[in-house]
Amino acid sequence: MERPWIRMRTFLDCVPCFVRQALDASRLVSSDESVQERVLRGVLDVASVIPLDRSPPHMAREIHRIIRKETDSADPYAEIKRNSTKIALEHLDAARERVLAAPDPFEAAVRFAIAGNVMDFALASTWDGNRIESSLEKALEKALVRSDIEELKETVGTAAMILYIADNAGETVFDRLLLEQLPAGRVRYAVKGGPVINDSTREDAEASGIGELARIVDTGTDSPGVILEDCSSEFRDLFSLADAVIAKGQANYETLCDCGREVFLLTQVKCPVIARDTEGEVGDWICMRGGMPA
Amino acid sequence: MERPWIRMRTFLDCVPCFVRQALDASRLVSSDESVQERVLRGVLDVASVIPLDRSPPHMAREIHRIIRKETDSADPYAEIKRNSTKIALEHLDAARERVLAAPDPFEAAVRFAIAGNVMDFALASTWDGNRIESSLEKALEKALVRSDIEELKETVGTAAMILYIADNAGETVFDRLLLEQLPAGRVRYAVKGGPVINDSTREDAEASGIGELARIVDTGTDSPGVILEDCSSEFRDLFSLADAVIAKGQANYETLCDCGREVFLLTQVKCPVIARDTEGEVGDWICMRGGMPA
Repeated sequence: MERPWIRMRTFLDCVPCFVRQALDASRLVSSDESVQERVLRGVLDVASVIPLDRSPPHMAREIHRIIRKETDSADPYAEIKRNSTKIALEHLDAARERVLAAPDPFEAAVRFAIAGNVMDFALASTWDGNRIESSLEKALEKALVRSDIEELKETVGTAAMILYIADNAGETVFDRLLLEQLPAGRVRYAVKGGPVINDSTREDAEASGIGELARIVDTGTDSPGVILEDCSSEFRDLFSLADAVIAKGQANYETLCDCGREVFLLTQVKCPVIARDTEGEVGDWICMRGGMPA
Repeated sequence: MERPWIRMRTFLDCVPCFVRQALDASRLVSSDESVQERVLRGVLDVASVIPLDRSPPHMAREIHRIIRKETDSADPYAEIKRNSTKIALEHLDAARERVLAAPDPFEAAVRFAIAGNVMDFALASTWDGNRIESSLEKALEKALVRSDIEELKETVGTAAMILYIADNAGETVFDRLLLEQLPAGRVRYAVKGGPVINDSTREDAEASGIGELARIVDTGTDSPGVILEDCSSEFRDLFSLADAVIAKGQANYETLCDCGREVFLLTQVKCPVIARDTEGEVGDWICMRGGMPA
């Protein structure tokens, strides 16, 4: 797939932020300062030469490969992910009640899917139960700065095959509410091909109960977001053939906002670089028909 | 001079902060994004291998050597420094009136010397006139969390030779108020041997009018703070022979807090790492008898 335009390159401002994230992430998964130092130095070394004409998740991929290597752990976020799924499941029934009681359950389900995107350990480095509850609480009321929910509803209504690209473990539980609103039997739910940050893998999706609602597929790679050249040819085929694509979270926004095909981007805006791109602010929620050049 | 203990090493938290500072500094001195990128990459490269058992100014020295090289400018902060001196001179007479009207002019002069330490472009990357005025305004009232002013007064009262180690251009102007309280003819005022950040060089000190009050000497190096092994042997001799040493600013705190001889450290606390060391908070003002291991 050619991409003659690249909107979401890595900005100079992303670099110090990545270095900070790398240190925070190393601390989240290891209390050994010599491990933290090796992660930090490895990331500095990679960052000193990495091309900036790629999207930020290229750098995140490298950081988390270093973290897995230096902590000698295939999935350093495993416990965090299990905990996220457990907490999210405790909130599921109450959230579903609110969706079904809403005047427009489809819209309400979209909103809970965005609310669940709070369960992110890429930028936030500590667990904050209050942040999760607050995100769920305001799910039905918070203004969406970009709201293409009607277009999304229309597109999925006529789609023979819908590709739903997941983001984080735990968030997956709230995705169920939107999956329940989509035509049965038509959805592929795509997770990562291998552990990276707290992104959902097949195991996390299954623990969330996704298997009852959609066929779980994977990207074929441990890259965050969807870096198409890293993905398996099976995933790339699905991505081009799908009649509707829903992509959750900021890394998917960053990698797909200029991918050349229509994608519905559902995310919370987590950093100033993305806020500039959406012409909004950090903290915004968006459901945006995007994917084509601006 | 042996230093069997090293209190002020570079902490892991300093590293992302340095990367951010390097980007901010590159933008302060060049609007060319390719220059900014080269500075950033050069700093990442150096940071990936620099030993952490040295004080933070070792890293700052490297950053600013890269900035001078990449901007092809011997003194990229020259205009900022001239502007700082000019602004400070506009405030001098009013500050002196307040010093002389104070119940204890010595203490008041120490306080203005600390207030002047706000003129720092190492961590702050934008000019903020309000911050300067606010620092001067509260000079006489702000609580000092460490206040060894009486000890300082006593020490300089009996000293045959006083070494006063300067920090930033502009701040130098407010140092005059303290120099006016010290025994005439006994003070060496030490500036940097070459331009680094907005630290005062001989030219900046002369433009501040220091020459009328003290003999200006220099460290013999462009290192921030006082990295003794980088300094000239003349400066090192002065440093060991002085009966009293006053050192201004955080970089001098970082390099001299465990140097092995008594130094009076006058600074505003500008980052969490130093706040931890002083057992205080960012924003604190201190006049501390230090230099020996804690």
